[in-house]
Amino acid sequence: MSNSEGLRGQTAGQTALCTVAQSGSGLAYRGYDIEDLAAKAQFEEVAFLLLKGNLPNQGELTAFKSRLRANRGLPAALRTVLEQVPASAHPMDVLRTGCSMLGNLETELKFSEQQDAAERLLALLPAILCYWYRYTHDGVRIETALDDDSLGGHFLHMLRGQYPPELDVKVMHCSLTLYAEHEFNASTFAARVCSSTLTDLHSAVTAAIGTLRGPLHGGANEAAMAMIERWSSPEQAETELLEMLKRKEKVMGFGHAVYRVKDPRNALIKPLAKQLGQAVGDRVLYPVSERVEEVMWREKKLFANADFYHACAYHFMGIPTKLFTPIFVMSRVTGWTAHIMEQRAHNRIIRPTADYVGPGHQDWLPIEKR
Amino acid sequence: MSNSEGLRGQTAGQTALCTVAQSGSGLAYRGYDIEDLAAKAQFEEVAFLLLKGNLPNQGELTAFKSRLRANRGLPAALRTVLEQVPASAHPMDVLRTGCSMLGNLETELKFSEQQDAAERLLALLPAILCYWYRYTHDGVRIETALDDDSLGGHFLHMLRGQYPPELDVKVMHCSLTLYAEHEFNASTFAARVCSSTLTDLHSAVTAAIGTLRGPLHGGANEAAMAMIERWSSPEQAETELLEMLKRKEKVMGFGHAVYRVKDPRNALIKPLAKQLGQAVGDRVLYPVSERVEEVMWREKKLFANADFYHACAYHFMGIPTKLFTPIFVMSRVTGWTAHIMEQRAHNRIIRPTADYVGPGHQDWLPIEKR
Repeated sequence: MSNSEGLRGQTAGQTALCTVAQSGSGLAYRGYDIEDLAAKAQFEEVAFLLLKGNLPNQGELTAFKSRLRANRGLPAALRTVLEQVPASAHPMDVLRTGCSMLGNLETELKFSEQQDAAERLLALLPAILCYWYRYTHDGVRIETALDDDSLGGHFLHMLRGQYPPELDVKVMHCSLTLYAEHEFNASTFAARVCSSTLTDLHSAVTAAIGTLRGPLHGGANEAAMAMIERWSSPEQAETELLEMLKRKEKVMGFGHAVYRVKDPRNALIKPLAKQLGQAVGDRVLYPVSERVEEVMWREKKLFANADFYHACAYHFMGIPTKLFTPIFVMSRVTGWTAHIMEQRAHNRIIRPTADYVGPGHQDWLPIEKR
Repeated sequence: MSNSEGLRGQTAGQTALCTVAQSGSGLAYRGYDIEDLAAKAQFEEVAFLLLKGNLPNQGELTAFKSRLRANRGLPAALRTVLEQVPASAHPMDVLRTGCSMLGNLETELKFSEQQDAAERLLALLPAILCYWYRYTHDGVRIETALDDDSLGGHFLHMLRGQYPPELDVKVMHCSLTLYAEHEFNASTFAARVCSSTLTDLHSAVTAAIGTLRGPLHGGANEAAMAMIERWSSPEQAETELLEMLKRKEKVMGFGHAVYRVKDPRNALIKPLAKQLGQAVGDRVLYPVSERVEEVMWREKKLFANADFYHACAYHFMGIPTKLFTPIFVMSRVTGWTAHIMEQRAHNRIIRPTADYVGPGHQDWLPIEKR
C-alpha cells in the first residue's frame, strides 16, 4: 500500500472550525476549548458557534432556539416515506433516506438559503429518526412538533413519550457538544468532496451520513455497548477482556487515529455516565466500564476515547443501542454543514489523481474469440 | 488558496480501472481504448469489463444481460416513495433518494453481496427515474419489468412507452460507454471516501449521485442544450457566441480539467449525433452545434468535450433536457461500483488533515457578558 493511501497526514484544504490534537490531546471549536464548551454551554450555543461563527448572546440564542423549535414538523410526504421503511432497516439508512427525501421537498435552490437549510436539518433529523422508530417499533404515529427547550430533550421526549429528567437533558447537551465537530474526519471530508461540485446541502449531508455509517467511523459506541453488556461483574469483565487481548481481538472505544496521549472528550462524559448510573441504581455496567478502562490502560496503554463511556451513558437513559450512531448524526450535522459552507466560500473542485496499477494496452477481441 | 486545495495533481490512491489523458488525450478502461469499446462493444460488455475485470465471452454476456433484465422490477415500497416526490423535484435528487431507499429495502449486509447489489442498481436506476418521471409528468404508473435487450433500450422504452428504433439503441450503447468511467473524478472520489469507512454500497452510490449533481461536475450537456436551442441558424449562433465570448461568459461543453489536447469521446459521439439529426429531419441543431464547435476552436482553441454533442444527440432522441445528467448516472454507476469494490479490497480509511486558519485560543465568556 503506497503512502498516499488514505491521504494520512496530507493536507486537503483549510478550515477555521476546529483544531484536533494540536498538543497531542486538545480539541477546540473556533478557538474554544472543548472543556469549556462541554461543561458550560448548551448544545445550541455550540451549534450556533459552528454555524454562525461566534457564541450567541442571549437574544441570539433565544431566537435560534425558537427557530429550531418551529422547524420540528415533518412534511406529510416525508412521513409517508418513513412509513415505507421496514423496522429491520439500519437506522443510519433511515436518516440518509430522510435527509435525501427532504431535499426533494425543500430543495436548497440558492446558497443564500444554506443557513435556513442547515437549521431545518438540525431540528428535523431527531424527528425523522424517532418518527420512523416509534412507527415501526411501537406502532404509533408520533407528533414531532413538541415544545421542548433543547434538541437533546426533544429527542428523548419523542423516543420515550414524556419529558425527560433534568440530568438526562444535561447529559445530552454535553454528549451532542462532544460529537459536534472533528476537522477532516472521513464523513466531513466526504461532505466537502461532495460540496466541491457546488451541489446542494442535502446531497452533501446525505453523503456524510452514509460515510459515518461505516464501522470504521461511527458505531464504536454501539460496539462498546455490545461488549460491556455481556459481563455481569468487573471480575468477569477483567477475565474475559484479558482473554480477548490474548486472542488479539479488537476492543472498541479505545485509542484514536489522531489523538496520541488521551481523548479529551473521555474525561467530560465519564463523570456524567457515573451520575446517570447512580440515578438509575446501576451496580454493574458502570463498574464494568471502569474496570475495562483500567485493564486496557494497564495492559495496552490504550486510553478510552469519546465513545467508550457514551455506551453506558446512553444505555442508562434508555436509548436502544442501534440508535447510538444516529445521535452522532444529530450532533455532527452542525460540523458537516459548517464545513459545507466553508467549502463553498473558498471552493475548488476536489479531484485528485490515482496511480494506475492495471493492465497495459489491450487489443480488442471480438466476442466469438474471447 | 493554497496548492493543496482541490488535491489537484495529488495522488489519493491506486486504481486498475482507468487511465485518463496518459498521452494528453487518451482514455482506456482496464487497458482497452475507448475508441474500440465505443465503436465495437455493447454497453453491457463495458459494464461487465468494469465490474468483473474482463470482457465477457458470449455465455457470460448472455447470463449478465439476463440477470439485468430480471432486476428491473421496482419494489412496492419504492414505488410509493417515488410517488411522494413532486414533479418539480431535481431528477438527480430523485435518483439519490431512490438509491438510498433501495438500501433500506435490500440492504447489502455483507461484502460478498456487492456484485449482486451493483447489478441490481445498474438495472434499476433507469426504472427509478422513469417511474417517477412518467408518474409525475404523465400521470401513469408504468411497468418497468420490460423485456428490452439493452439497458439503453429499456430506458428509452420506459420513457416513450414504445420500443425504440435500432439507431437510438446504438447511440445509447455508445453514450453509456463513453460516460461509464473516468478515474478519480469528484463523484467517484466521493464514493471511495465514503466506502473507506467500510459502509454499504448504497451509501457510497448515494454519495456519488449527490456529488455528480453539482454544476461543476454533471450538468454540462444540459447547459450546452440550453445554449444551442436558443439559436435558429449557424449564422445567429456565430454572432451571439462571439458576443458571449466578448462578455467573457462561460460556454459549457468545451475544454476539460484533465484533457489538454482533445477529449477522445467527442469524435465518437459526434457522427452519431449527425446520424440522429438526419433521421429526425433536423436542419438547425446539428448545424448550429458544428458552427459553435468551429468558432470555439478558431477563437479560443477550446475543443468540444464529451458533453457537447451529447446535447443534440439526446434531444434528437426525444429525451427531456432535465434527464440528461441522470443518464450519466445510469452509466457511471458501473465505474462507481467498480471503484467501491477496489477501495474495499485494499482499504485504508481516507482521513486527510486540514490547515487551521481560524482564531487562536478564546477564553470562555458567560452568556450575559457576550
